[in-house]
Amino acid sequence: MEILQHHSTLATTLRERRQRLAKMIDFPAILWSGQRSSRNFPANVYPFRASSHFLYFAGIPLENVAIFLHGGKLELFMDEAPSSHALWHGEMPKREEIAQAIGADGAFPLSELPSRSTGAATIAVQDVTTYQQQTQILNRSVAPADGAEEIDGELVRAIASLRLCHDPGALSELRQAAAVTVEAHQAGMRATPTAKLEAEVRGAMEHVIMAHNMTDAYAGIVTVYGEVLHNEQYHHPLQPGDLLLADVGAETPMGWASDVTRTWPVTGTFSSTQRDLYEIVLAAHDACIDKIRPGIEYLDIHLLAASVISQGLVDLGILRGQVSDLVEMDAHALFFPHGVGHLLGLDVHDMEDLGDLAGYEEGRKRSSRFGLCYLRLNRPLKAGMLVTIEPGFYQVPAILHDQQLRSKYQEVVNWERLAQFSDVRGIRIEDDVLVTEEGSEVITAALPTHADAIEQLVQ
Amino acid sequence: MEILQHHSTLATTLRERRQRLAKMIDFPAILWSGQRSSRNFPANVYPFRASSHFLYFAGIPLENVAIFLHGGKLELFMDEAPSSHALWHGEMPKREEIAQAIGADGAFPLSELPSRSTGAATIAVQDVTTYQQQTQILNRSVAPADGAEEIDGELVRAIASLRLCHDPGALSELRQAAAVTVEAHQAGMRATPTAKLEAEVRGAMEHVIMAHNMTDAYAGIVTVYGEVLHNEQYHHPLQPGDLLLADVGAETPMGWASDVTRTWPVTGTFSSTQRDLYEIVLAAHDACIDKIRPGIEYLDIHLLAASVISQGLVDLGILRGQVSDLVEMDAHALFFPHGVGHLLGLDVHDMEDLGDLAGYEEGRKRSSRFGLCYLRLNRPLKAGMLVTIEPGFYQVPAILHDQQLRSKYQEVVNWERLAQFSDVRGIRIEDDVLVTEEGSEVITAALPTHADAIEQLVQ
Ligand SMILES: [Mn+2]
Ligand SMILES: [Mn+2]
Repeated sequence: MEILQHHSTLATTLRERRQRLAKMIDFPAILWSGQRSSRNFPANVYPFRASSHFLYFAGIPLENVAIFLHGGKLELFMDEAPSSHALWHGEMPKREEIAQAIGADGAFPLSELPSRSTGAATIAVQDVTTYQQQTQILNRSVAPADGAEEIDGELVRAIASLRLCHDPGALSELRQAAAVTVEAHQAGMRATPTAKLEAEVRGAMEHVIMAHNMTDAYAGIVTVYGEVLHNEQYHHPLQPGDLLLADVGAETPMGWASDVTRTWPVTGTFSSTQRDLYEIVLAAHDACIDKIRPGIEYLDIHLLAASVISQGLVDLGILRGQVSDLVEMDAHALFFPHGVGHLLGLDVHDMEDLGDLAGYEEGRKRSSRFGLCYLRLNRPLKAGMLVTIEPGFYQVPAILHDQQLRSKYQEVVNWERLAQFSDVRGIRIEDDVLVTEEGSEVITAALPTHADAIEQLVQ
Repeated sequence: MEILQHHSTLATTLRERRQRLAKMIDFPAILWSGQRSSRNFPANVYPFRASSHFLYFAGIPLENVAIFLHGGKLELFMDEAPSSHALWHGEMPKREEIAQAIGADGAFPLSELPSRSTGAATIAVQDVTTYQQQTQILNRSVAPADGAEEIDGELVRAIASLRLCHDPGALSELRQAAAVTVEAHQAGMRATPTAKLEAEVRGAMEHVIMAHNMTDAYAGIVTVYGEVLHNEQYHHPLQPGDLLLADVGAETPMGWASDVTRTWPVTGTFSSTQRDLYEIVLAAHDACIDKIRPGIEYLDIHLLAASVISQGLVDLGILRGQVSDLVEMDAHALFFPHGVGHLLGLDVHDMEDLGDLAGYEEGRKRSSRFGLCYLRLNRPLKAGMLVTIEPGFYQVPAILHDQQLRSKYQEVVNWERLAQFSDVRGIRIEDDVLVTEEGSEVITAALPTHADAIEQLVQ
């Protein structure tokens, strides 16, 4: 297994993580890795992705394994592969080898797990088969991770607080994911002038990710229909005048994610209307990043993006009125309907399996406001947090043709002026920003954002 | 949805399929498409793959949809996307549009399915959540697909007999998958001389598949450790003298698969020992394809491969004895331990969710013999079947270091001679072969097999 060979510091990193956990909870915890889900027949499975909470403490994407954490110690529960397995899958590392790689304090077959599970907390995994095993072995009900109760709830809060701020081991992985993602976007830009379909640009980007033996952290978006926020179609032709929006991020073999978006002109040249709106999104992007430092409320970063975008649209004559009034009435959300970003770590929306527990400071709830309801992060920032900054401008038919919204915002939108920008469907600029003691560091900064630099890469 | 735009003959193809089904069963059937499985958190899902049985009759990979088949008619049961869906995923085709595209005789919301399900047969899907819905809606137990009973068993046998031989609509898709797969292998060969890692060659191959907006039909194998039959690691360096074995196949958006293997020298030049063994595998490959025609037993094709490989190994001095004796005692299986191929269609091992029901003629069972136990297909061939032919030679430590096997075959293996071929870990040559009225057609023949031609592509 590749990972056994390369990470001599892994055991130290993992030991420190579980020692930090031990300071927060005084009961044992069992975390399951999960197992593969079948695709079209049992032997044809989806690529395995271990549970992120498991990966945080076990480091290695082991299938069908559990770890027992208590008092800063880790015990590994796994079955050895049967010997028939070697013909098809090669020799697997032995339990003891893996135990050594992750610095386990003990290693046992899975059959011994039930006798060790009394009083242990856990977090529900995503795959249904393992989830059923969790309830069987613990011999109690286990709520889904976003509804964890009692000791499971305490465990979830403890792990979330640990995972919020990244240690050096995590940052090393996150920087690797970021570097490969930057390279993938550069390849996508270079491939665009000769590509006829979105899929061809996507292929060039995925080529880079796979060549580094990484995977996608999420279903990539590579589309000329950037106004479809989670577009997963890649069959459209690229036509002169189109903007291509690519939101693609790599994930390291150990599970750490990157999440980057760039928007570039298919021809290599922005039209003047495209450039006008691009500059507004970029101004919001830059202003948000400038403001990031420990202690700042992420909500204020989001509202700053809303203000900068509103101001820009007022300057272009698309919106009318005072910026502060426009933001208060969510007018910006007609064109920027999502949050300015989210936590990033082992998950691209880090710990979203826990609902808003990680993203929202205790006691805070999602707003129902049109301009805030999709904000995934609402906490004061702390050094070690990695967040995305991803403002955007979109012309979403489902919003702009909504009669209720149109009449609510009738007075503040200059619809004729807006019509002059019909060659912009969607623009987003997204980077991964580490909160540091001094302020912030854009770990994806190697990928240009300025319109001129983007144009030069698309050649 | 892409597929609605391009397939004007789809409705006709689908109508003919269900009319053929109606001649075989007189009870209704409901087939579910299934739904996405979560990866690391609920919203981050694996790419959707609809159930193959559903795809055969519904054509389009619709999520969370069911079709009701009875008397040659099809009714579509699906819910419209809620309007909030459009912001994130764009406008979805309406139920009526999809119904028209697939030539449905009626279209209803899912809520009406339970009242239509009385007496309906079904086939269990792979995803656990939908499987639970199947039992709830039918209000009875549903066995896994490989253990279907009563009307479910009758349905499974009827569909298997239909899917065994491909209609023109299926063949059109299968040829597209084959063509893209050929191109992917060519790209992999071209990328090899400058690649440092297996992953880089894989990236070049997947680039081609993705650029055609296709997906992998299975987890590709791209490895210098070809003796690990289902190797899924891609991190090894490529070193002079290595053979690279690539078993990669594309799948069309409608779900039809290809499955091709080539083995090439990393440097572009086979060593003489590598070439000697390559020629043996190729001779087996060619002999098997020459023999394919309607009426031939696939088991005899497998045994022909065993004979040709045994003869070749005798000629090289690796095996000793009469070829017929060697094959009878499974000596070839020391080096060629798997079956010579399998059915290919919507699944890369077509209909393997049904166990051996599709692969094995009624009344036949898997042999427990060392040389036959992995044979996935044992039927007389019929025109319209698509099969793989994939003989190989491997030096598998789990076999060659097995003391029981070593002593059993002590006399027939010249171990010192074998040691001279240590630069061959694994060789496989796999093509997709259509059984025709006249004989056969290799639908992946555009990809060369001859050693000289392979060497020329790796430049
Ligand atoms: Mn993001
Ligand atoms: Mn095959």
